[in-house]
Amino acid sequence: MKKVGVAILGLGVVGGGTYRILTGHRDFYRKAHGLDLTVECVLERNAARAVELGIDKSKICSNIAEICSNPEVDIVVEVIGGVEPAKTFVLAALNAGKSVVTSNKELYCKYSYELEKAAKKNNCGLFYEASCVGGVPVIRTLLDNLQGNKILSMTGIINGTTNYILTKMSDEGASYGDVMKEAQKLGYAEADPTADVEGYDAAYKLSILSSLAFHTKIPFTAVYREGITGVDCTDLANGKRLGYALKLLAVGKNKGDGIEVRVHPAFISSNHPLAGVKDSYNAVYITGDSVEDVMLYGRGAGALPTGSAIVGDIIYCATHDNFNYSPFENTKDADPATKFICNFKSAYYIRLTASDKAGVLSKVTAALGKHGISVSQLVQDENRNGEFVSLILITHETREKDVDKAVEEINLSGIAEVAAVYRVVA
Amino acid sequence: MKKVGVAILGLGVVGGGTYRILTGHRDFYRKAHGLDLTVECVLERNAARAVELGIDKSKICSNIAEICSNPEVDIVVEVIGGVEPAKTFVLAALNAGKSVVTSNKELYCKYSYELEKAAKKNNCGLFYEASCVGGVPVIRTLLDNLQGNKILSMTGIINGTTNYILTKMSDEGASYGDVMKEAQKLGYAEADPTADVEGYDAAYKLSILSSLAFHTKIPFTAVYREGITGVDCTDLANGKRLGYALKLLAVGKNKGDGIEVRVHPAFISSNHPLAGVKDSYNAVYITGDSVEDVMLYGRGAGALPTGSAIVGDIIYCATHDNFNYSPFENTKDADPATKFICNFKSAYYIRLTASDKAGVLSKVTAALGKHGISVSQLVQDENRNGEFVSLILITHETREKDVDKAVEEINLSGIAEVAAVYRVVA
Repeated sequence: MKKVGVAILGLGVVGGGTYRILTGHRDFYRKAHGLDLTVECVLERNAARAVELGIDKSKICSNIAEICSNPEVDIVVEVIGGVEPAKTFVLAALNAGKSVVTSNKELYCKYSYELEKAAKKNNCGLFYEASCVGGVPVIRTLLDNLQGNKILSMTGIINGTTNYILTKMSDEGASYGDVMKEAQKLGYAEADPTADVEGYDAAYKLSILSSLAFHTKIPFTAVYREGITGVDCTDLANGKRLGYALKLLAVGKNKGDGIEVRVHPAFISSNHPLAGVKDSYNAVYITGDSVEDVMLYGRGAGALPTGSAIVGDIIYCATHDNFNYSPFENTKDADPATKFICNFKSAYYIRLTASDKAGVLSKVTAALGKHGISVSQLVQDENRNGEFVSLILITHETREKDVDKAVEEINLSGIAEVAAVYRVVA
Repeated sequence: MKKVGVAILGLGVVGGGTYRILTGHRDFYRKAHGLDLTVECVLERNAARAVELGIDKSKICSNIAEICSNPEVDIVVEVIGGVEPAKTFVLAALNAGKSVVTSNKELYCKYSYELEKAAKKNNCGLFYEASCVGGVPVIRTLLDNLQGNKILSMTGIINGTTNYILTKMSDEGASYGDVMKEAQKLGYAEADPTADVEGYDAAYKLSILSSLAFHTKIPFTAVYREGITGVDCTDLANGKRLGYALKLLAVGKNKGDGIEVRVHPAFISSNHPLAGVKDSYNAVYITGDSVEDVMLYGRGAGALPTGSAIVGDIIYCATHDNFNYSPFENTKDADPATKFICNFKSAYYIRLTASDKAGVLSKVTAALGKHGISVSQLVQDENRNGEFVSLILITHETREKDVDKAVEEINLSGIAEVAAVYRVVA
C-alpha cells in the first residue's frame, strides 16, 4: 500500500470539501488504487474551522515551514485563494520538494510561469484542474485528450454566479439588483461580487484555458473583459423572443490570423447546447480541427465538485511519474510573435429608442450601411411608449469597431438613441 | 526530439482519419511536444486504400510479424474492428513490446482481461479512448478526473446511428424503415445495421464504461439490451407532446444494493441536457458523489473525431511512463460478489388501445393498481379511430416486473390492448 500524505492550506468551502472527500473515501481509495491517502496536516488561522471538520488539534500547523519540513507530506493542496500568501506558500512547498494541487485561478493565471519553473526545478507536480470550472474535466481534456488537435475555438460559460443571475433575470423578468440581493442572501454571490460580475474570474480562467488550447501564453492582460452589471432584463426578454439566451461568455478563437480572447455578455442561439446551461451550471464548448465539437458540462463551483477536481489531481499525482507541464513556453508575457485581434468580427444585437415617425428606420439602416453593417433581423417593439418606439436590430457579422462608430454616429445625429448593444455568438 | 514510430492496422474510415491527422499535424506535434510522430508502416489488405492516402508502397506490410519485428515501431494502432484477426494482432504487438491504441469496442469489451494481462506482462500501454463515444473524452475522465468519486450513475446516448434515426423520426414524423433507408444511403448506417440498431454497439461501450465507473468488471453479458427497430413514430410524437424525447439510452447505476446496466429506448424529460443531444451527436451524463453532475458531449463517431481520440492516446502514450490499467480486477467474468439488479425501478410510458366505452379507464387503472402501479399522467388521444380510443399513461416509479405482469394481465383480460411500453428516465 503506497502511503501519500496530504497537507491542506485553507479550510474554506473548497478546503473543507476536499477534506471531507479524502477522509470519507479513504477505504475506497485504498481498495481502488492501493493508495493510502491521509490528511497529515492543515494550515488554517481559524482553528474553529478545523475543529468543526473533526481535525485533531495536533494536525493544525501555524506556518508553512512546518508543512514544508514534514517528511510525511507529499502533496500540498492550496485552496486559500488570491495571490498572497498563497504564492509564497506554494513556492515554499515546491522548493521543499512537495507536489502542489491548487484551485487558485488568480494565482495560477498570473504566476504560473514562476510556479511551473519552481515545479520543474524540483521535479514536482503542479496541478490546477480545480482552478477552472470546478468539477468539469476541462484542463485534463485539453492537456491529454485533445492534443491531437489544433483547437480552433472555445466558448465557455465559466462563472457560476453570473450564470445564476442571468438565468434568474431571464426566467423571472427580475432586475439585476434584485437578483443580486437574493444571490448574496443565498450565498451564490460574494458580499463584494466584483470579481464575478465584472468578469475577472472568467478572464483568469479564459487566460489559463486558452493558453492550453492555443499552445501559447495568453496573459490575463490580453483578455478583453466586460461584466454583467449593466444588463437590463428588457434585453433578456427581447433576446428570448428572438430565439437567443444572454450569457456571460468567455470566447477564445485561433483562426490562424491571430488570437481573440474575450469575456462579455452575449446572445447565443437557443439551439446551441450552451444556451441550455442554466443556473450555476457551467460548460465549455471546444472546437478542434479533428474532434469537431466537444462540450464539457457540470458544476463550476461548490465544495464537493471543486473538491472532486482536487482529489482527482491528488490521485493522478500519486499514481503518475509524469506531470504534464504546460505544452507551450510558459513566460510572464505573451510571445511577441503572438498576434491578438481586438477588432473582431461578430453579429450584434442593437436596441434603439426612436421617435415614432416615418423615415426613422431608413435613417438608422442607412447609418449602419455607411459602416458596412447590414441587418439580418429587425423587430419593432409593439409596446409603444408615447411618441417613442423601441427598435431591435440583429446585424450580420461585422467588425466591432464599425459597430462602435455607427452607434456613435446614430447617437450624435439625433435619429435615435442606442439603448443597448450586445454581441451575438453562433 | 523524441522519435515515435506508429503502425496502423486497418485503413478504413478511422484508420484513414488517424493517418491524415498524424501526417497533417507532424510539425505541430514536433513544436508542441518535442515529438516526431511518424507512421512507419500500415497493415491493410486493400492496397488501394493506402495508395489513396498517399502512403508509399514500401510502408505497406503484408503481415503482423513484419510490424512486430520492426524496431522503428513503438505504438501499434488497431482500427480493424471485430474480434479476429484484431485480437491476434493486438496480442502479438503487445508480446513484441509495442504499446497498443485501439478503437475496437467489441474486442476491448470482450477480451480486455486478456489484452491487459499481456500489456502488463510486457510493460506496454493499452489505450482505448476511441473505443467509446469517438472524440468525447469519457474514458480518461473516468480514469483520471473522477477518481475522487464514487460514481452513482451514468446515462449515455452512445450510439450515433440510432440517435440520428430517432432524431429524424421525431423531427419528421417518418417511419423507422424510411429513415433507415435514408441513413444507409447517406452512410450513417451500415448495410447490416444490426450491431447499432439492436443495441450491441451501445452495450459493448456500456460494459467498458460502467466497469471503469463502478470499479468492478461488468461483462457484456450482464448488460440488458433492447434495440430501436420496434419504435413507432406515434410514440415519439406522443412523448414530445408530453415533454419527453425518446432516445436509445445506456444506463448504469450503482446505488449500493447492486448494479444496473441496460441499453434500451427510453423517454427522457425534454428539460434534461441529454434530450438536446441530436442527430449523430453523443453524450454521457455522469453523476458522482462529489462532482455531482457532469456531461461530456460531442461526436461519437467519424474519421476525424475518432482519429482525434486515437492520436490523443498516442501522444499520451509517448509522453507518459504510467499506463493507467483498469482500476479494478479485470477478469473474464464479473466478480461473484457483484450483484446485478434486473428487476429495476423506473417510470413507464404505456400506450393502450381500448374500445371507446365508459369504464375502460377505471378497469385499466385497477389492473395497474393491483400490481402496485400508480399513474402520474394520463392522456387520451383525441383522434378517435372508430370505436377505439388510444390512451397514454405515465406511471410513477415502479418495478419492471410489475409492469410486465400488469401488461400481460390487461392484454389477457380484453379490457384493452397494450400497444407500446417505454421506460421513462429522469
